[in-house]
Amino acid sequence: MTSRKSFGSDNHAPAHEAVLRMMTQANEDDVHAYGDDPWTERVTGELCNLSGARSAYFVFNGTGANVLGLSLMLHPYEAVICAETAHLNVDECGAPERLLGSKLLTVPTPDGKLTPELVATRLGGRHDEHRAQPRAVCLTQATELGTCYSLAELRALGEFCRGQDLRLYIDGARLANAVAYLTCSVADLAAEADVLSFGGTKNGAVAAEAVLVMAGDLLDAAPFQRKQLLQLASKMRFLAAQFAGLLENQTWLLNAARSNSMAQRLAEGLRGIPGVSVCQAVQSNAVFADLDPAITGPLQRDWGFYVWDEQQNTVRLMTAFDTTPDDVDSFLAAVREASASRV
Amino acid sequence: MTSRKSFGSDNHAPAHEAVLRMMTQANEDDVHAYGDDPWTERVTGELCNLSGARSAYFVFNGTGANVLGLSLMLHPYEAVICAETAHLNVDECGAPERLLGSKLLTVPTPDGKLTPELVATRLGGRHDEHRAQPRAVCLTQATELGTCYSLAELRALGEFCRGQDLRLYIDGARLANAVAYLTCSVADLAAEADVLSFGGTKNGAVAAEAVLVMAGDLLDAAPFQRKQLLQLASKMRFLAAQFAGLLENQTWLLNAARSNSMAQRLAEGLRGIPGVSVCQAVQSNAVFADLDPAITGPLQRDWGFYVWDEQQNTVRLMTAFDTTPDDVDSFLAAVREASASRV
Amino acid sequence: MTSRKSFGSDNHAPAHEAVLRMMTQANEDDVHAYGDDPWTERVTGELCNLSGARSAYFVFNGTGANVLGLSLMLHPYEAVICAETAHLNVDECGAPERLLGSKLLTVPTPDGKLTPELVATRLGGRHDEHRAQPRAVCLTQATELGTCYSLAELRALGEFCRGQDLRLYIDGARLANAVAYLTCSVADLAAEADVLSFGGTKNGAVAAEAVLVMAGDLLDAAPFQRKQLLQLASKMRFLAAQFAGLLENQTWLLNAARSNSMAQRLAEGLRGIPGVSVCQAVQSNAVFADLDPAITGPLQRDWGFYVWDEQQNTVRLMTAFDTTPDDVDSFLAAVREASASRV
Amino acid sequence: MTSRKSFGSDNHAPAHEAVLRMMTQANEDDVHAYGDDPWTERVTGELCNLSGARSAYFVFNGTGANVLGLSLMLHPYEAVICAETAHLNVDECGAPERLLGSKLLTVPTPDGKLTPELVATRLGGRHDEHRAQPRAVCLTQATELGTCYSLAELRALGEFCRGQDLRLYIDGARLANAVAYLTCSVADLAAEADVLSFGGTKNGAVAAEAVLVMAGDLLDAAPFQRKQLLQLASKMRFLAAQFAGLLENQTWLLNAARSNSMAQRLAEGLRGIPGVSVCQAVQSNAVFADLDPAITGPLQRDWGFYVWDEQQNTVRLMTAFDTTPDDVDSFLAAVREASASRV
Repeated sequence: MTSRKSFGSDNHAPAHEAVLRMMTQANEDDVHAYGDDPWTERVTGELCNLSGARSAYFVFNGTGANVLGLSLMLHPYEAVICAETAHLNVDECGAPERLLGSKLLTVPTPDGKLTPELVATRLGGRHDEHRAQPRAVCLTQATELGTCYSLAELRALGEFCRGQDLRLYIDGARLANAVAYLTCSVADLAAEADVLSFGGTKNGAVAAEAVLVMAGDLLDAAPFQRKQLLQLASKMRFLAAQFAGLLENQTWLLNAARSNSMAQRLAEGLRGIPGVSVCQAVQSNAVFADLDPAITGPLQRDWGFYVWDEQQNTVRLMTAFDTTPDDVDSFLAAVREASASRV
Repeated sequence: MTSRKSFGSDNHAPAHEAVLRMMTQANEDDVHAYGDDPWTERVTGELCNLSGARSAYFVFNGTGANVLGLSLMLHPYEAVICAETAHLNVDECGAPERLLGSKLLTVPTPDGKLTPELVATRLGGRHDEHRAQPRAVCLTQATELGTCYSLAELRALGEFCRGQDLRLYIDGARLANAVAYLTCSVADLAAEADVLSFGGTKNGAVAAEAVLVMAGDLLDAAPFQRKQLLQLASKMRFLAAQFAGLLENQTWLLNAARSNSMAQRLAEGLRGIPGVSVCQAVQSNAVFADLDPAITGPLQRDWGFYVWDEQQNTVRLMTAFDTTPDDVDSFLAAVREASASRV
Repeated sequence: MTSRKSFGSDNHAPAHEAVLRMMTQANEDDVHAYGDDPWTERVTGELCNLSGARSAYFVFNGTGANVLGLSLMLHPYEAVICAETAHLNVDECGAPERLLGSKLLTVPTPDGKLTPELVATRLGGRHDEHRAQPRAVCLTQATELGTCYSLAELRALGEFCRGQDLRLYIDGARLANAVAYLTCSVADLAAEADVLSFGGTKNGAVAAEAVLVMAGDLLDAAPFQRKQLLQLASKMRFLAAQFAGLLENQTWLLNAARSNSMAQRLAEGLRGIPGVSVCQAVQSNAVFADLDPAITGPLQRDWGFYVWDEQQNTVRLMTAFDTTPDDVDSFLAAVREASASRV
Repeated sequence: MTSRKSFGSDNHAPAHEAVLRMMTQANEDDVHAYGDDPWTERVTGELCNLSGARSAYFVFNGTGANVLGLSLMLHPYEAVICAETAHLNVDECGAPERLLGSKLLTVPTPDGKLTPELVATRLGGRHDEHRAQPRAVCLTQATELGTCYSLAELRALGEFCRGQDLRLYIDGARLANAVAYLTCSVADLAAEADVLSFGGTKNGAVAAEAVLVMAGDLLDAAPFQRKQLLQLASKMRFLAAQFAGLLENQTWLLNAARSNSMAQRLAEGLRGIPGVSVCQAVQSNAVFADLDPAITGPLQRDWGFYVWDEQQNTVRLMTAFDTTPDDVDSFLAAVREASASRV
């Protein structure tokens, strides 16, 4: 990897200094293992206050969070409705199917976002024993395409789910970015969910996510599911401390706001460049753009980013909490140069 | 928890300073995610050199390591032979059964150690489709009872397994302690195994274990199994860095040697005390002792440790890399006092 | 196989004529598939009347019945307590572990029968997330060792389970034999259970078992679990018709009584013979006896039966609904001859 | 259900008389259980001769056959490519996902048939650990839409699969209809497959399917997978006898040919009727037709059939081995009348 800032993934970034500082601070004295320690107690409480959750469970990664969250609401003969582009469907190597036994009922979407109408198309066959029974809706906030559900859209989905006896799970690997974009609270985003994840890793943690359980009837199974699904840390204080670092002085929100604003700067800069077309609304820390292949090729020699759709020549450009205006401007200069150099 | 040193678990200890120092050192610049980074490459190589493994895979915790390791060698209709006291059987909330689909065939042992003779008692029903087919042997080194397999015992088990077409998996959550006790190399312990884990967390890491794959034919599935079993870290460098800290200046071995020697000191001190009887060989960082309940009760008011067997009045006393002679001596003084105060 | 009557298994017997007669009778006209047909409706009703069940579900075989029955009461992190000798543990190739994800907590028993005291030994670790949580008790009636739970024993177990928040499942592959032995009703045996199976195949069916659901809160999932667990027959009328044949004129009870009485005749005959010792109470259609190996060897040349325990020289002798007094007497004569011929 | 012939499903039909006759014939004397009997041996051999299979395994139903067949070729991190309309995807309540742990990668098709080009669209992400790895292709012959793959199409798919290191599984629930339509042999259809099912139930059996294993390297696991997946019959002779009935005098082929020809008669009759449009090629025993809802409504009062697609007003009309020309003609008369009565 070059020493230039990567636009490949917010996972390419290091951790925020507050995260490692808090881990170091947590690194003294003995405490009980498996979460029975003061760090876990305190940070769990803070997460509950922030979100209105009944309890919070730290896990190691986003796939772990999603599988644990959904495990609380599903029998194996019950299915999850999600967008075709959902991380759950595309990027988890079939972990939901294997570990939950559940079928995913996927829906194509233009922008990564489900709507009640789209969910309704997957509700056929209820009460028919031949069909996996739709039971949960999984949406991602912010989505894998960089878009956000508005609070009104969330409320409409929440109401629809309640009316249809569907549980609502939110994959919040980039929940902070949605909070920053919508200038709302975590509780606002969590209000309609039965369970949601609150991502730490992409926001500046080392390896930590939280599963927030909103629905009281789903609490009992959580500790057992977490353990059986390989997500129980023995030295739990170090997961809690990562969130302590992010929660300190609203670092999580500042990190998200910074990466969001860098994505905005990037998108604005791209808009003027010939051969470049921003193709999704920029509502978090991702910019999706269609690039003339004659631009993409040269650009990839020096800069890290991924081609999202080879057919459409769409690239995904991610910013991170530590992306700087200079990083963006250098990248934009390179795009302009590649654009201009086309024959 | 009191501020006194815990003898409850090596998981109660903090992390070794070298671990957090290396994590901090790894915390600069962008690198690729999911293990395609220089830290992972380097430390993986060092682990392979140390053990003779074909490849090494970092995971988050011991249960994850065990399930991943066994996933490489088992179909769901195949069974694992292990000691009744194995962590795999007792402390993983049924994760092996759920995630692998495999049955555990457990064997009572006096000291937590399998022998060819004990394994042989679970080999009935081969080729009988009604029976789960014995396919892997899982042994723990050092065992959950603080004992170690000698190299000769390992060789005998390895030879037996090969002769019986059984794969050998070693749960090495405390492998370092066994290396220190046996004054051998990691490669010596790994030589007979098809796959083994090399535990970091109990040795001073934050949350990191390595799965070492010795058998070339088991390599291909490992990346996919790790991902599907929720053990793939995005910011992998931080798992690698933890091992970098442990590997630096043989910290892992010194940590293990220190905790082993504290267990020896503890056991020697206990041996003279009325009402106390050390009941397992002390070959790692655990002391198992039968205590007069009139000792256990008062002692638990001030000191952290677990009663292992309520019927036998057996307690488990664990030392950690940071247990000091003073910690041991203070504890021994408390035991002596409790012993003397009995009516 | 010789043309002599087999004492190897009640599965060696053909089907009762009433079963095939009813299947033939059911074989006219079109009816709806998957159980929405008059045969299924009628026979399901009859089974509910007989047992007090809320509903009954036909499945193909005993392992299917057990896995379906238990699927209604278990999350994957919950465990089943059963006898070490249970079919569930020994003869199902790990199907419960794979298909339910649940651990079996097995208990050694002298006679294949659980007691509250034995169950209590497996209740450790409740509320401890590291342990699979005991949630169901599975007992077999009549047991794999030919013994029966008395009604008083069942009531004690039922009461114990309710007090301990445990569900009770009865594997009734040979339930009819228990009814005949105890001269009680099916409802008497079902009274304490949440779910039980009522075996058809060993009683004279071709391939049919019924899962009887007693607990109303377990009904909803049953159709979906049956389908997902591969137990839903399209031409369901033919499963129903098999039970129609068994229920006609209490054929099921007469079949069981006949095989039980043949086992009694067999046991009585064996008791006088030198080198033979009946080693389990004969309370159904099985006789377990320790035989001098000098008897077993020659006997196996002409007669079909299985050695149950090679170390103890225990053989299992099963009778079936069509075993005759002559079959028994011929076998006894052969045993006597083998006994006398010993040096 | 009315006494009129059902066009709802070939599962509504009774069993062919030869099937019950053979079951009755098999119903004498004791034989060994679980397939170690002369009926099973003989009929298995006949199926192998017919298809070129290395071995054949009887199971209870089509979902069982599909899950067993695929279990022989898949690890849980490997995926199956199938048509969106595949029974595997739509009608098995998520059994493949739960029991295999595998993801289904579905492809929309116009006619229920995969092509190399369609399969190729699902081959992205190979060697990427985040993606379930495409490993098997499942096609249905005849398809759920009544169409058949030609031998040339099968060969093209087989060649493509071999070139792409993909295993080929054929769901042959209606394989007989495809043989009859293509006037080829079973071996012709089986030639490209690694494993396929050969359906008995829809062809006139009571409840029996055969899994034919063509690839020698997939044989070893089959008995254990069958048992663990709840598909092992104790009185196996009765499954074998069902196939004996179907194989006798090529009854299976005559049954298929008859139902196919009744579908042709039906389609031809429908083609002339106003408000009716046959919308899929009729290549087996199914006719798919778009019906004016003003026809469908009145028709459903007297006749049994299913609306396949409510939006398109498509109905599915199935014929069975016992459908007669009179049945078809009466139905056609009713359609004509309903068509004429429209305002």
